[in-house]
Amino acid sequence: MASGSSAGFDRHITIFSPEGRLYQIEYAFKAINIDGLTSIGVRGADCVVLGTQRKVPDKLIVADSVSRLFNLTDKVGCLMTGLLADCRSQVRRAQFEAAKFKNRNGYEMPCDVLAQRMADLAQVNTQSAGMRPLGCSMLYAGYDEELQQPMLFKTDPSGFVAGYRACGVGAKQMEAKNYLEKKVKKKSDYSLDEAIEIVVNCLSHVHSMDFKPSEIEIGVVTRDSPRFRALTEPEIEHHLTRIAEKD
Amino acid sequence: MASGSSAGFDRHITIFSPEGRLYQIEYAFKAINIDGLTSIGVRGADCVVLGTQRKVPDKLIVADSVSRLFNLTDKVGCLMTGLLADCRSQVRRAQFEAAKFKNRNGYEMPCDVLAQRMADLAQVNTQSAGMRPLGCSMLYAGYDEELQQPMLFKTDPSGFVAGYRACGVGAKQMEAKNYLEKKVKKKSDYSLDEAIEIVVNCLSHVHSMDFKPSEIEIGVVTRDSPRFRALTEPEIEHHLTRIAEKD
Amino acid sequence: MASGSSAGFDRHITIFSPEGRLYQIEYAFKAINIDGLTSIGVRGADCVVLGTQRKVPDKLIVADSVSRLFNLTDKVGCLMTGLLADCRSQVRRAQFEAAKFKNRNGYEMPCDVLAQRMADLAQVNTQSAGMRPLGCSMLYAGYDEELQQPMLFKTDPSGFVAGYRACGVGAKQMEAKNYLEKKVKKKSDYSLDEAIEIVVNCLSHVHSMDFKPSEIEIGVVTRDSPRFRALTEPEIEHHLTRIAEKD
Amino acid sequence: MASGSSAGFDRHITIFSPEGRLYQIEYAFKAINIDGLTSIGVRGADCVVLGTQRKVPDKLIVADSVSRLFNLTDKVGCLMTGLLADCRSQVRRAQFEAAKFKNRNGYEMPCDVLAQRMADLAQVNTQSAGMRPLGCSMLYAGYDEELQQPMLFKTDPSGFVAGYRACGVGAKQMEAKNYLEKKVKKKSDYSLDEAIEIVVNCLSHVHSMDFKPSEIEIGVVTRDSPRFRALTEPEIEHHLTRIAEKD
Amino acid sequence: MASGSSAGFDRHITIFSPEGRLYQIEYAFKAINIDGLTSIGVRGADCVVLGTQRKVPDKLIVADSVSRLFNLTDKVGCLMTGLLADCRSQVRRAQFEAAKFKNRNGYEMPCDVLAQRMADLAQVNTQSAGMRPLGCSMLYAGYDEELQQPMLFKTDPSGFVAGYRACGVGAKQMEAKNYLEKKVKKKSDYSLDEAIEIVVNCLSHVHSMDFKPSEIEIGVVTRDSPRFRALTEPEIEHHLTRIAEKD
Amino acid sequence: MASGSSAGFDRHITIFSPEGRLYQIEYAFKAINIDGLTSIGVRGADCVVLGTQRKVPDKLIVADSVSRLFNLTDKVGCLMTGLLADCRSQVRRAQFEAAKFKNRNGYEMPCDVLAQRMADLAQVNTQSAGMRPLGCSMLYAGYDEELQQPMLFKTDPSGFVAGYRACGVGAKQMEAKNYLEKKVKKKSDYSLDEAIEIVVNCLSHVHSMDFKPSEIEIGVVTRDSPRFRALTEPEIEHHLTRIAEKD
Amino acid sequence: MASGSSAGFDRHITIFSPEGRLYQIEYAFKAINIDGLTSIGVRGADCVVLGTQRKVPDKLIVADSVSRLFNLTDKVGCLMTGLLADCRSQVRRAQFEAAKFKNRNGYEMPCDVLAQRMADLAQVNTQSAGMRPLGCSMLYAGYDEELQQPMLFKTDPSGFVAGYRACGVGAKQMEAKNYLEKKVKKKSDYSLDEAIEIVVNCLSHVHSMDFKPSEIEIGVVTRDSPRFRALTEPEIEHHLTRIAEKD
Repeated sequence: MASGSSAGFDRHITIFSPEGRLYQIEYAFKAINIDGLTSIGVRGADCVVLGTQRKVPDKLIVADSVSRLFNLTDKVGCLMTGLLADCRSQVRRAQFEAAKFKNRNGYEMPCDVLAQRMADLAQVNTQSAGMRPLGCSMLYAGYDEELQQPMLFKTDPSGFVAGYRACGVGAKQMEAKNYLEKKVKKKSDYSLDEAIEIVVNCLSHVHSMDFKPSEIEIGVVTRDSPRFRALTEPEIEHHLTRIAEKD
Repeated sequence: MASGSSAGFDRHITIFSPEGRLYQIEYAFKAINIDGLTSIGVRGADCVVLGTQRKVPDKLIVADSVSRLFNLTDKVGCLMTGLLADCRSQVRRAQFEAAKFKNRNGYEMPCDVLAQRMADLAQVNTQSAGMRPLGCSMLYAGYDEELQQPMLFKTDPSGFVAGYRACGVGAKQMEAKNYLEKKVKKKSDYSLDEAIEIVVNCLSHVHSMDFKPSEIEIGVVTRDSPRFRALTEPEIEHHLTRIAEKD
Repeated sequence: MASGSSAGFDRHITIFSPEGRLYQIEYAFKAINIDGLTSIGVRGADCVVLGTQRKVPDKLIVADSVSRLFNLTDKVGCLMTGLLADCRSQVRRAQFEAAKFKNRNGYEMPCDVLAQRMADLAQVNTQSAGMRPLGCSMLYAGYDEELQQPMLFKTDPSGFVAGYRACGVGAKQMEAKNYLEKKVKKKSDYSLDEAIEIVVNCLSHVHSMDFKPSEIEIGVVTRDSPRFRALTEPEIEHHLTRIAEKD
Repeated sequence: MASGSSAGFDRHITIFSPEGRLYQIEYAFKAINIDGLTSIGVRGADCVVLGTQRKVPDKLIVADSVSRLFNLTDKVGCLMTGLLADCRSQVRRAQFEAAKFKNRNGYEMPCDVLAQRMADLAQVNTQSAGMRPLGCSMLYAGYDEELQQPMLFKTDPSGFVAGYRACGVGAKQMEAKNYLEKKVKKKSDYSLDEAIEIVVNCLSHVHSMDFKPSEIEIGVVTRDSPRFRALTEPEIEHHLTRIAEKD
Repeated sequence: MASGSSAGFDRHITIFSPEGRLYQIEYAFKAINIDGLTSIGVRGADCVVLGTQRKVPDKLIVADSVSRLFNLTDKVGCLMTGLLADCRSQVRRAQFEAAKFKNRNGYEMPCDVLAQRMADLAQVNTQSAGMRPLGCSMLYAGYDEELQQPMLFKTDPSGFVAGYRACGVGAKQMEAKNYLEKKVKKKSDYSLDEAIEIVVNCLSHVHSMDFKPSEIEIGVVTRDSPRFRALTEPEIEHHLTRIAEKD
Repeated sequence: MASGSSAGFDRHITIFSPEGRLYQIEYAFKAINIDGLTSIGVRGADCVVLGTQRKVPDKLIVADSVSRLFNLTDKVGCLMTGLLADCRSQVRRAQFEAAKFKNRNGYEMPCDVLAQRMADLAQVNTQSAGMRPLGCSMLYAGYDEELQQPMLFKTDPSGFVAGYRACGVGAKQMEAKNYLEKKVKKKSDYSLDEAIEIVVNCLSHVHSMDFKPSEIEIGVVTRDSPRFRALTEPEIEHHLTRIAEKD
Repeated sequence: MASGSSAGFDRHITIFSPEGRLYQIEYAFKAINIDGLTSIGVRGADCVVLGTQRKVPDKLIVADSVSRLFNLTDKVGCLMTGLLADCRSQVRRAQFEAAKFKNRNGYEMPCDVLAQRMADLAQVNTQSAGMRPLGCSMLYAGYDEELQQPMLFKTDPSGFVAGYRACGVGAKQMEAKNYLEKKVKKKSDYSLDEAIEIVVNCLSHVHSMDFKPSEIEIGVVTRDSPRFRALTEPEIEHHLTRIAEKD
């Protein structure tokens, strides 16, 4: 970065630079990649699979106390990437928004509505100077029973939101994107097993390593089992074995 | 930019420079052009057509989840240009204002009243230091059944508002303006088909490319069908074919 | 500007410079002249005429959607000069103040009381740091039926207010002042036709050009027709022809 | 000004300099003299006379719309010197304070109590950072019917207040002071005619010019006519003639 | 002052310098001495005498309108030194505090309690950044009928408060202190006449001048006449003559 | 630290640096290590042991008045590391949160829920600018009777929270971590005596010293005695002797 | 102090320096020592003695109006060291907290609870930017009738609090600490007379001077007379004589 071009403009959350950029938001994106993790999401024919490397910062930590998979409602789940504390804060807010929605409307907040709402809240942090943007990005997974359709969404610190067929976020997101684009071009109605396979292989590919069951987190939602849940370690082991045998 | 002429004055939202300029607003205009998109609006004899290139930032995104066409009321629609999150925020506000109006007055908020209101709200962001101006510009389309007249309005971050016969906003707005002025000089009571043709040709002209149906978004409102709606991909294909055959 | 003399003092709205000047107010005056327009007001024997060039920034704009003439009450009108969005904001406030007055007192707010009130509000923006001064100046026209007298007032961003026999505001205000002083010295009880003639000629003089009916805006109020109204294009054409024939 | 001695301390309203000075207040005093006017007040045996040059900034202005004489109550009047908009703002506040006093206590606010109150309010603007001090000084005139005594007071931006036998404020206040001291030394129970004469002669003296009736403003209050009022142009003419004949 | 040692720390009201000093308070003390006045207080056997030079800044001022002696309650009086407007502001507050106390408790606020309260309020201005410290120091005089004892207190901008047998404040406070210490060492149960004599002689001593009755202000309170009051000019003349004859 | 890389960004609590870092949080971590203490926690088969060196800053202090062990509820305890006053402040808040929880829900706040809550509160201090992050880290110990499981949690100034099998915090946390990892690798179902032994040996190891009973603090919670309590000095002596004999 | 290491970080109350230090708190400690006083506290077998030099800044001051000993409740007293006005402010707050406690709970606030509360309040001034830390340190003395134990506590501007067997605060606190440590090592169940002797000798030692009864302040609380009170001058004289004779 040439300091001359941004000097001064990048210390205020809500001040445009002469080129129309909001530097603090760009810096928040950097915060997402700091811990080197990458999150992958894939939407299959009737399922969504979210997966990421489980890199426990300290061997003494009880591994399952630092999961990055969260349930926002019974049926909508998310995978967080970025600063751990910011992730947890945003999950809390999403859970609150979802609960408020259900309380007001009498039915579960749909995955897309929740993602839109969280993006709106993120935009406010870029416009008024009260709070910094959060240094994290969120992948949402759900199965919309009304539209009979699996749903995969992403929001980021700028307030952006979009639906995805497949998506990579984090330190290796460019590599993940290239990998996923090839897969999605070939076929888009993947079964659950195939989707899990793509997620696992993509993670192995971008991190250039093979994972043990304890080194990976996978969350799934399907038409038949529309509650979002994390796979157990045995389940992951089963899939890893299956994938390994395939190669 | 000669740093000597603006230094210091461009970091405060509400401070005049010695020449009487408000730099932050000028920078917000730059933000509108950052993603290279251009929006075109054309008012025909009894219709309004809004169109823009659909440039999905990522092939993995589900294209229709990032539309820039929005319904503000049943009958009034808009086409947004600029920072995506700011666009969505402004649309939300416009929808809220329109709903409040209808609730208070018992009838739909007319297109021009809504545009005036949004411009008033934008002006406030340039006068008090609480919130930055939004980095987006809005084209409004509606058919006023009382005046029996199609309406095309534009608002921008400075709080400017005006009615237009045709209008271009965004990265190529100068080129679009030149193209549209020639068309409007020739004739001003275009039919719907003609108006769509102008929009499509203008976009092709300023971006120097031909569009596939999936690469373009078109929203229309007409006297006979006063509800604002986006054309479906087959409809767009139909028009593109028609226009291509004409050449 | 010698930076040495103002450096630092001109970035705070409410800080005096060592010479006792408030620089931000002086800069706000510069904002009034940025778009090159000049507004003229003339008080005749029993009428007031306000006029300005209609310079539509873009040929595609529907000309009558960017008028600078506004009704503040049925009987009091104004002509705005300066930043468009600030003009509209100040008009809204004046309309609100006038409506509040009528609601409280049961009769229309007189022209002079309204001008005083708007000047008081402008002064507040120069004393407390909450809001910047507005970059616009306002000419008020009304016929006071109690005093049986036409009234022409001006307010500016500093909170100044005064009654005028004739007045020029904007980019060419010095030239207009010189022109009007000669006219007013000669005679002060001009008829409506004469007053319109002075306004038109003054505008032609300071801009060194002749106007087409669509290039000029004229608002009038008279004893016999005390409602402030803008002249229609045919009416303006009629006057322009009359004036041209006279020469 | 040696920048070294004040640098930094003069940009904050409520910060002492190392010598114990409050620079912003000193700068506000400069603002009083900017337009070159001088105000004179003289207390006679049973009258007070306030006078100043009427220097209309623009020949097109209706002269009596920019008077610097104001009634604060029926019986107490004032003559303002300094920034026009600040003057008007302070007068409004004084009128409000006087009305509140009368409403609470059932009798008119005496001249000295009102001056004390306005000085207290001015002091607040020097102690807390919310509002800048006002760039104007106020001369108060009244006849106290309880004390059977004419009263002349002055307040300034620092919150100073005092009673005067004669007083000069503004651009030429040193010259006026010298002139008035000689007069007051000679005699202190001047009649109304004599007091007016001193005011007029003092103004002529400090500005080195003779005034036409339209170029001067004079306000008076006397035991016999305790309502403060401005002299009409014919009355002023009468006095000017009388004074001229005397020489 | 070596700028290096204080630079930066002296512009914030509530920031300690690296040596633990609060510079703004030290600067406020400088403000007390700016006008060159010195205040003297002496506690006799059953009286307190406060005295200061009456230096009217302008011969045209009505001298008794700028007294520095004030009654805080019927029985407690004070003599103010420092910026005139700050003095008046602090007196108002003290009067308010005393009235509130009486209203709550049904008896007059004792002199020492009032001084403590004012010191507490001054401390707040040194701890929170809302208001600057006041540039004035206060001498309190009262006769406590319960303790059967005269009382002399001083408060200053730092929030300091103490009882004194004799006290000097202002431009010449070191000289006054030396003078008073010698007197107090010799004897401490001075009569009223003796106490007045000490005050007058001390003022003459530190200012190296003799005073006319109109050039001095003296306030007294005694056991027999416990209402604080200023001496009249004839009374002062009587004392001055008496003292002069004594020499 | 190269000042060039952080300059400016590290003085604002909620501003990202260009690399996406929040410097103030990193500095808060430094504050934890300033007094050179290290805290150790070990989770056994059915117990949790927390221990730290008791380094009284002053021999005159009554040693047990500066304990770093606190009860948050009857059953949940904590060991604080960092700035003493911040530690106490955070303990107060945790006690308040636990009491509020019990009051609302009718049962004790579980250890993990409390740790999550405290981490959420810490995150707020990193996002909004109102309060600085606290310079302390917290180890929580409890026995969850529902899950039949001992619980050891850690929170830090960034809002991080995780469960641990063993944990070291403070000046020597790297050394402690290495020591504990070896122990935990070997075996994880330590008995209470063994867990105490690990804590004591780890402290001796990282500080390279042997402790007297008065130089160490140990808090324990077990399945059989689920109330968190500090060991008494005789108890500690008993364990130290036991451990010493073992070597 | 090398300015390079703290520059910038020491002007904000709540900003950590890169080493994790809070400079403003360290500067507040400097303020405690500015006036050169030292406070000594000693806890005997069944008594607590607080003592300090009475250094009246001005011989004219009535000595007992500037005591540094205060009663917080009937039974708990304190000895303040540091900026006089800050001391008084903190005493007021402690008295208020103690009264509120008694009012809520129906019994006197114990000495240790009060000290904890004051430390908590001091911590808030280091965490949020509203108020600066107070430049004073507080020694608390009380006899806890429930625990049958004398209590000596200290709090400081950082929010630190601890119980002490003996304690020195202020300009000579290092010398006092060394002196007291030797005394406390020898014996800890001193009688009242012995405790007073230690306090007096310690003060004489650190200031290298002998005190007259009027030059020293001593406050005591004992099991038999649990009300905290200052010794009268005759009592102090008695003790000084006794101690002198002993040598």
